[in-house]
Amino acid sequence: MAQEIRYSLKELTEQLGGEVQGDASVSVTQVASLAHAESYHIAFLANPKYKEQLASSQAGAFILARSMTGASNKPCILADNPYTYFAKVSTLFNPPLRGDEGVHERAVIHPSAVIGAGARIAANVVIERDAVIGAGCSIAAGVVIGAGVQIGENALIYANVTIYPLCVIGNNVILHSGCVIGADGFGLAPEAGRWLKIPQIGRVVIGNDVEVGANTTIDRGALDDTVIHDGVKLDNQIQVAHNVHIGEHTAIAACTGIAGSAHIGAHCTIGGAAMIFGHIKIADNVNVSTNTLITKSLPKAGTYTSALPFSEHSVWLKNAVQMRHLDSMALRLRSLEQQLASMEKNNG
Amino acid sequence: MAQEIRYSLKELTEQLGGEVQGDASVSVTQVASLAHAESYHIAFLANPKYKEQLASSQAGAFILARSMTGASNKPCILADNPYTYFAKVSTLFNPPLRGDEGVHERAVIHPSAVIGAGARIAANVVIERDAVIGAGCSIAAGVVIGAGVQIGENALIYANVTIYPLCVIGNNVILHSGCVIGADGFGLAPEAGRWLKIPQIGRVVIGNDVEVGANTTIDRGALDDTVIHDGVKLDNQIQVAHNVHIGEHTAIAACTGIAGSAHIGAHCTIGGAAMIFGHIKIADNVNVSTNTLITKSLPKAGTYTSALPFSEHSVWLKNAVQMRHLDSMALRLRSLEQQLASMEKNNG
Amino acid sequence: MAQEIRYSLKELTEQLGGEVQGDASVSVTQVASLAHAESYHIAFLANPKYKEQLASSQAGAFILARSMTGASNKPCILADNPYTYFAKVSTLFNPPLRGDEGVHERAVIHPSAVIGAGARIAANVVIERDAVIGAGCSIAAGVVIGAGVQIGENALIYANVTIYPLCVIGNNVILHSGCVIGADGFGLAPEAGRWLKIPQIGRVVIGNDVEVGANTTIDRGALDDTVIHDGVKLDNQIQVAHNVHIGEHTAIAACTGIAGSAHIGAHCTIGGAAMIFGHIKIADNVNVSTNTLITKSLPKAGTYTSALPFSEHSVWLKNAVQMRHLDSMALRLRSLEQQLASMEKNNG
Repeated sequence: MAQEIRYSLKELTEQLGGEVQGDASVSVTQVASLAHAESYHIAFLANPKYKEQLASSQAGAFILARSMTGASNKPCILADNPYTYFAKVSTLFNPPLRGDEGVHERAVIHPSAVIGAGARIAANVVIERDAVIGAGCSIAAGVVIGAGVQIGENALIYANVTIYPLCVIGNNVILHSGCVIGADGFGLAPEAGRWLKIPQIGRVVIGNDVEVGANTTIDRGALDDTVIHDGVKLDNQIQVAHNVHIGEHTAIAACTGIAGSAHIGAHCTIGGAAMIFGHIKIADNVNVSTNTLITKSLPKAGTYTSALPFSEHSVWLKNAVQMRHLDSMALRLRSLEQQLASMEKNNG
Repeated sequence: MAQEIRYSLKELTEQLGGEVQGDASVSVTQVASLAHAESYHIAFLANPKYKEQLASSQAGAFILARSMTGASNKPCILADNPYTYFAKVSTLFNPPLRGDEGVHERAVIHPSAVIGAGARIAANVVIERDAVIGAGCSIAAGVVIGAGVQIGENALIYANVTIYPLCVIGNNVILHSGCVIGADGFGLAPEAGRWLKIPQIGRVVIGNDVEVGANTTIDRGALDDTVIHDGVKLDNQIQVAHNVHIGEHTAIAACTGIAGSAHIGAHCTIGGAAMIFGHIKIADNVNVSTNTLITKSLPKAGTYTSALPFSEHSVWLKNAVQMRHLDSMALRLRSLEQQLASMEKNNG
Repeated sequence: MAQEIRYSLKELTEQLGGEVQGDASVSVTQVASLAHAESYHIAFLANPKYKEQLASSQAGAFILARSMTGASNKPCILADNPYTYFAKVSTLFNPPLRGDEGVHERAVIHPSAVIGAGARIAANVVIERDAVIGAGCSIAAGVVIGAGVQIGENALIYANVTIYPLCVIGNNVILHSGCVIGADGFGLAPEAGRWLKIPQIGRVVIGNDVEVGANTTIDRGALDDTVIHDGVKLDNQIQVAHNVHIGEHTAIAACTGIAGSAHIGAHCTIGGAAMIFGHIKIADNVNVSTNTLITKSLPKAGTYTSALPFSEHSVWLKNAVQMRHLDSMALRLRSLEQQLASMEKNNG
């Protein structure tokens, strides 16, 4: 089984910075939530509002904001940002599970494919002609990697992912199960009541340090490429259409759809189930709210929203009727204003 | 090929209750819709409104509400609830297809995994280290079951499902193709314009009698578990984020997204393409309508809605413009009311 | 590697019509976008508005609208519809990649299955009892085809697709990775606080020339079949519930959901993330806009919309508050009109 990983608070602060308060020789073996921690766990608290949870937590040590010095008698690490500090501690305790070493005898690898040093290839992986898999990659069971695909170093590809031919994937990329990289974009030309298929001959090009969630789909470009830049994080069940570009370090929550040729800037955050029209351009540092439909370019940073507030159904029913009469309400309002203005003039 | 299953009406009512009207020795071999039934079928009618469809149906027998006694000259079963009665009859005629017996020689099973009695494991299934598969489970082709996963008895797991390490799945669970159980939650901490990944070390814990639709994703917890309680039914293409809890016997329709740490009560129904914010609590017996965005906790049972009514596009255009002016319309309305009040006072 | 495909403009117009302007012996080997074309590429321009891009493009030849005669000194093909002409040229240069010939030794094919002449079956494909695969089909790695499935000729089934038992698929169908055909519909009957599963015994029947996008799900019928007619094009991540019918040559964009027993006409277009209620009927030639919820039958052709316009978040907040007061705004407006009418009468 997995070997135990153990760090003292002293060792943690030597690696990650921060300051120990109390006994620095205390050691822990895992992170946990305040509520479920045991004595061998370290837990964190970022928000002073929940300070009273420290008293009841069974954790052996805490990561706290510097402003919370003295909030617990237990050994603590004080950090500028307890949440990112916690993320780093957790990463030490929880390296990704990379599967067994070597190439499983039940993987099917084309003789022309190149497999980098130390790559782990599980059972029933299929790697097709001329694909190149970088050093240190882990490819889980059932993954299919098409002809000519290039994958950088240390990628982590979970079970049952599909990558279509010729796509390019950077270093340290994580692809979760069921995601599909490089399927044909939805390119159709109407002719005499039928649809002609436009061959989709671009690729998907994914940069370094990108993570793609489960069952997310990223279509290949029609002529040029679909491009996902370094550090982009995509949640589950997202649809990225052909020729979309997503800028560096943009994070997109689940169930969002991005239509063809939309260009999204860097450092954006896009809420769940947002929909982005095609052929528009979104600036850097834009935030799109959950359930919001963006229908035109957003040339400047800011937060944009179009969600309809919910109500009890009976209340909603009455308001919803009026949503179909807003134009006439506006006209009636204008007419009242004119009438009143004229009456006031007459009475004046 | 499959063996024929045949029941007389007498045998059906002995097993399932209800009362035969007419010849109880008549036997049928399958259920069908009224429109497409043949003489060897039994069809059902729950709604007296469609009574005239009985006359034209070729079914050999009917399941009817007790209030419809005499509505057909053909043999009938009268039941309190014809729809649930029909569901039970159909279940007799249509036991789930469980694949061939035994373990296929092309399954890849780690020697440390435990496979229960009578389990059926198809070709190209991969079962990793220390996984435990309960008695009577059926696992279809291409399924990947991660290290340490525990699955109860009689689960039915369709082709190309992926279950990440350490997840726990109850008895009589059905997982449809393409669903992904236990991928990492979308846990990111911002640091200096980049995203740090928070390791997701919780599990997904699924109770008994749960059904999960095709291509639905249920993420593992960040620290604690994501929990799907007994009897929950999830349709296709649903996204369940990390640390969500879904209460017993709640049913959720397709394309719905549930953000992190939302807790949904028992016996709820959630319509298609609903979106539920994270960190909120929804009471038992809540109904959420299709396309509805729930942005805060719902502490009491009821039906909640936020869908925008559709119109012809030209009509919608005119109303949509005003949706951006509602605040100013409200102000203008208030101002008119004040003007008028003051005029009336002056005129009074 | 792939053999080079090369056509002169003369050869292209002999096959596809249109008229050469300039040197018809010039030959090209691939299509490209105006921006990225090299001298061995042919590019197209449909919109005279972007005419100036011709001068800077490095393409060796262009496809232009007849109205643009003389717009470039380079060899051109003049076509009535440059976009469809381009689609046909691109199809000549880019025949679908159909995988290696023959049946891979690592495919698992039940002895009772019938494999048509020239079919290409990749590694780790599983084809179950009594399935019939038509001549010329290409079935990529990891595809699972259930018992009794029938597939017509020349289908192109990408990696990790799942087809449940007994479904029927026509000629020239394309199924993209991760799509699931024939999973159980969401059929549940409530009984005493629990859900009874209604067996789903219909099939999915897909016509000829249908394309289904990545991770799209089409559920089997409850009793009768779910039917996708000839020429239908479905994008990625679409959910088609049980007993839906989709008429010929209808195209549906990504992330759309269609609830049970909805019947959609022929030649419709449905925008992304639309949601269609169950048990409704949509006429031929209907266009549904992106993000639109259709809650009742649409008996006549036209364009229908319900999307909420987005705003900057601070503006949205002020307007959103009023969306919950529309009913009272309407009442107040009515009351003002009555007051004013009565004042005018009194003053008159």
